[in-house]
Amino acid sequence: MEKAKISFLRQLHQKKFRSESGLFLVEGVKSVLETLRSDWDVQEVLLTDKMRPALDGLTLSCTVSVVTDKEMERISMLTTPPEIMALVARKTFIASDLRDDQSLLVLDDIRDPGNLGTIIRTADWFGFEQILCSPTCVELTNPKVIQATMGSFLRMRVVYEELPTILKQRQSQSTIYGTFMEGVPVQQIDFKGNDTLIIGNEANGISDALKPFIQQKISIPTYAVGRDKAESLNASIATAIVLYEFKR
Amino acid sequence: MEKAKISFLRQLHQKKFRSESGLFLVEGVKSVLETLRSDWDVQEVLLTDKMRPALDGLTLSCTVSVVTDKEMERISMLTTPPEIMALVARKTFIASDLRDDQSLLVLDDIRDPGNLGTIIRTADWFGFEQILCSPTCVELTNPKVIQATMGSFLRMRVVYEELPTILKQRQSQSTIYGTFMEGVPVQQIDFKGNDTLIIGNEANGISDALKPFIQQKISIPTYAVGRDKAESLNASIATAIVLYEFKR
Repeated sequence: MEKAKISFLRQLHQKKFRSESGLFLVEGVKSVLETLRSDWDVQEVLLTDKMRPALDGLTLSCTVSVVTDKEMERISMLTTPPEIMALVARKTFIASDLRDDQSLLVLDDIRDPGNLGTIIRTADWFGFEQILCSPTCVELTNPKVIQATMGSFLRMRVVYEELPTILKQRQSQSTIYGTFMEGVPVQQIDFKGNDTLIIGNEANGISDALKPFIQQKISIPTYAVGRDKAESLNASIATAIVLYEFKR
Repeated sequence: MEKAKISFLRQLHQKKFRSESGLFLVEGVKSVLETLRSDWDVQEVLLTDKMRPALDGLTLSCTVSVVTDKEMERISMLTTPPEIMALVARKTFIASDLRDDQSLLVLDDIRDPGNLGTIIRTADWFGFEQILCSPTCVELTNPKVIQATMGSFLRMRVVYEELPTILKQRQSQSTIYGTFMEGVPVQQIDFKGNDTLIIGNEANGISDALKPFIQQKISIPTYAVGRDKAESLNASIATAIVLYEFKR
């Protein structure tokens, strides 16, 4: 593979270049095959020679390039480079893609790519189909986000938009919940199909600007009584417990 | 700080050297202060000049060394080096530290340090006090594990031991549950205080050697019916949902 192309692909590690080109990389055989089967537009598959059989029986409309292990290592973001990756065009969802009759998970300033990816994977597992991210959240096509979703990014409408704009529209028809250290224990809530659930930043929780929109504060009980304990839960863990309870 | 000492501290990134020395590093102000307040043996605090006020009012019996930002960067495992770290002697727990009258979380080959750290943090939040790890699990004092626990490693008895040895002892007085893709939905289980819960490896689940010990297979319902969905949950997410349900 030409050096210029490797340089181009390496630039996709940076948000700026992903945003300008509308392209990103999907790494690893499971995620690449799932992307090829999806309605996302794969522009090119790059693979090492020994991975060729993985594509047997697939009808592909995109370029397939065989690269060396060394080239794969240069292009990959992972500590252990994959044997296969795909160059994919980003599908962008906008505010009008959010459905009022479906539940909405709202992420306020989630910064850790592992957390965002894991939240998308968990939401997909529990049957959620749409997520609203504040513009300050980590970007969806960040390689670590994509990796942590384990393919679930393909099935989720993830919209980046100023949260108050959307919350203002939803507040008349949807109950808006927010997770806090103090609130009604989540197992006491009787969630409905089009509820809205806000999860806050890893360190600072839900921002003050969103508090007027919250109709009910909820919390996850600790059950560790009368002793020192963890001060908080990881953001993706807290989200998972609320989503589980939502559907329970 | 002398070069030899920096080299020594850097060696603690490696499991071999942590194991030989019985020492490890705790990074970041919250975790360091929590470690100083705990019954773990802090041998030295390293901090940058501007972090000195953080120790005001503390009576310390250990050495305090002021290092430059550059030295901190060399010693740290984190992308963003902390302003303070502690050199801590490992407290080792053994099989006889496991209490039969308490619930036991059993981790079978959890490899990802973020997962192990997050599981310890979550278990601490929900009031669990002991975890049994297979010898193949990632090592507790791995810097990424310690970081992800957010201080909860201080309050958890984490024992590394061959799992069948312990499960053989527990099976007469404790119900042993294992999480699988197929099993009784977790919300239908009536957990008791000294139950045993096995969580499997990220990719391969619970190993065959443990299956004879499992008295009840449990699963986390997906609720995403009639459409493609995530194939599985992240191991720390699955653990969190079961621990939540355990205490609910």
